[in-house]
Amino acid sequence: MQRAPARPGDPVDAVETPALVLDLDVFERNLDTLAHAVAARGLRLRPHAKSHKTPAIAHAQLARGAVGVCCQKVDEAAAFVEAGIADVLVTNEVVAPSKLARLAALARQARIGVLVDDAHAIASLAQAAAHAGVTIDAYVEVDVGAGRCGVPPGEPALELATAIEAHDGLRFAGLHCYQGAAQHLRSPDERRDAIAAAAERTRRTRAIVEGAGIAVPIVTGAGTGTWEHEAASGVWNELQAGSYAFMDVDYARNTPGAAELRFGHSLFVLAAVMSVPVSDKAICDAGLKAFSFDSGPPLVHGRGDLVYRKASDEHGVLELAAGAARPALGERVWLVPGHCDPTVNLYDWVVAFRGDRVEHVWPVAARGAVG
Amino acid sequence: MQRAPARPGDPVDAVETPALVLDLDVFERNLDTLAHAVAARGLRLRPHAKSHKTPAIAHAQLARGAVGVCCQKVDEAAAFVEAGIADVLVTNEVVAPSKLARLAALARQARIGVLVDDAHAIASLAQAAAHAGVTIDAYVEVDVGAGRCGVPPGEPALELATAIEAHDGLRFAGLHCYQGAAQHLRSPDERRDAIAAAAERTRRTRAIVEGAGIAVPIVTGAGTGTWEHEAASGVWNELQAGSYAFMDVDYARNTPGAAELRFGHSLFVLAAVMSVPVSDKAICDAGLKAFSFDSGPPLVHGRGDLVYRKASDEHGVLELAAGAARPALGERVWLVPGHCDPTVNLYDWVVAFRGDRVEHVWPVAARGAVG
Repeated sequence: MQRAPARPGDPVDAVETPALVLDLDVFERNLDTLAHAVAARGLRLRPHAKSHKTPAIAHAQLARGAVGVCCQKVDEAAAFVEAGIADVLVTNEVVAPSKLARLAALARQARIGVLVDDAHAIASLAQAAAHAGVTIDAYVEVDVGAGRCGVPPGEPALELATAIEAHDGLRFAGLHCYQGAAQHLRSPDERRDAIAAAAERTRRTRAIVEGAGIAVPIVTGAGTGTWEHEAASGVWNELQAGSYAFMDVDYARNTPGAAELRFGHSLFVLAAVMSVPVSDKAICDAGLKAFSFDSGPPLVHGRGDLVYRKASDEHGVLELAAGAARPALGERVWLVPGHCDPTVNLYDWVVAFRGDRVEHVWPVAARGAVG
Repeated sequence: MQRAPARPGDPVDAVETPALVLDLDVFERNLDTLAHAVAARGLRLRPHAKSHKTPAIAHAQLARGAVGVCCQKVDEAAAFVEAGIADVLVTNEVVAPSKLARLAALARQARIGVLVDDAHAIASLAQAAAHAGVTIDAYVEVDVGAGRCGVPPGEPALELATAIEAHDGLRFAGLHCYQGAAQHLRSPDERRDAIAAAAERTRRTRAIVEGAGIAVPIVTGAGTGTWEHEAASGVWNELQAGSYAFMDVDYARNTPGAAELRFGHSLFVLAAVMSVPVSDKAICDAGLKAFSFDSGPPLVHGRGDLVYRKASDEHGVLELAAGAARPALGERVWLVPGHCDPTVNLYDWVVAFRGDRVEHVWPVAARGAVG
């Protein structure tokens, strides 16, 4: 773990670069906006903590009514349980016996859920639960259009729900129906149509499971790009958005629907210019190890005349528009990450500020928790 | 810092996934190959530690004759000095006063070098050295074709060398002439031509500086893609290759010249299949947080019938060729990173194995050292 780039009380101008920084005013507004909207619809919010990996942020979400958090990995779940989060859903398949044992051990301290999409995996999960003397919430993952994990809609989900019900240490908690591929469809109509199709598959699956006499307490899914459609469908009763807290360049590329709620950019990488060798560019200290580039380069915030053009490991080349004032050596540049989740995973600390003052320096406790 | 995914003595089969794993036989062969070749040419090798960020690997390079290491950031340098490396060159500009103070403090424990490409920055560096009561090696960075940092060849470099000589706490150590843009040119002729042009600019600059009566002890540069050209030029006397220790998919895309030495893939991400929902694909547990995708997806090692097709945060979709045997749930997959440097930066540990047994589990001490 690296040295923190700032201390609470520091002026923002003194934060060492590059640093992951969070504008608390915008962040809290994002949290409030979604919390109110979900509560008004009578639904549960279980924000995805893979976006932030930061217990302090999870607690801020819980304080606004979230029922718990989602994680993607057992080690992430461990970090949040250790930080006192009492209800964690691992929205992923876990199959290695060593990981199942660790997951089951967590269920002694917290309510733990996990996904299954395979009958053998259910047997292994049940064995781990029995060995630890705990009960685990098992959700059947259904592929409702993303084409990634999950059984096909309908009968295959019923088969797995039935298999879960046969084990003492497992509780069939419901269906996990996440249309991840719909989140970044650019037009509101495409997103609406993708979720309408997913809703139809989900509704049919739920009817088949319930028709066999098995209750489906929770139908969970949705993300920042589509949550209003899942919320309006009457099918999902729990929403998993995560990126809404930060917003990144790629989500901002979605064209919002007329009635859709908006979230603001709260998360930045604060960088500094370290070389100004020629007149039409400036080189900053944040490159491939300061951002994930899977969804493209960062956006220069508040400087429409600067474009982050290319990156090497620890350099970012900023191109100046014609007539733009070249930043001075040492000048700060605010950069919005292309994709927040894997960018956050590069940092040990998030520096949370309000106005011109650092308020908190939070450890990104689940950084690197890939296991 | 996360839990280590293995312990020394463990069978490789027991390493938890995903993990960064290093095949020591191939790795040591890579280290020996370059060390012998550079020694045979009477040159200095200062491997770039930004690739591995791991003190144990730096020590293995020094044991084979390396004169020291390169780093990109002050915090990286701090991690290597703390681990007992006595000679560290930061191949980058450093301008923030707080960073200059930390850099100067390191020079009390080790020989420290850094690049300059600006007269004001030289004054700040000299001030930090004077304040700490140390002497720092200052290298003038010359842009020999990469178009990133560095002054233009010729007179501008002489001006900075003269400015360095005027300060007691600075030692003009030489010229930093790295043609980074040439490293991944695909054909051997393109790489040769790019380095020939860089050599001409470097030679001319050195002659101008020496012509003014200033000695140029070191001309440093080169990378894994071109080092044989710099070595043969008679201009450079110190080489900085780093990726040669690991090799990644992107370097393997370079067409080697007939006489060029080759390095083998020693670094992998060991992943496991966690979902096999349909017959033509398998989903593994290593995605955007297990690899950097800036140079494309990883390559499946030893399985020509599997292609790593797409990634989300913690999922990798493996596509099966027609007739390929689908991996079983839990099966291990060996993946060669697209780009080793930013991939290593995701992990807290590198698991070094020989044959089927883990030999070391090394902390990636400079992981996340962006400051």
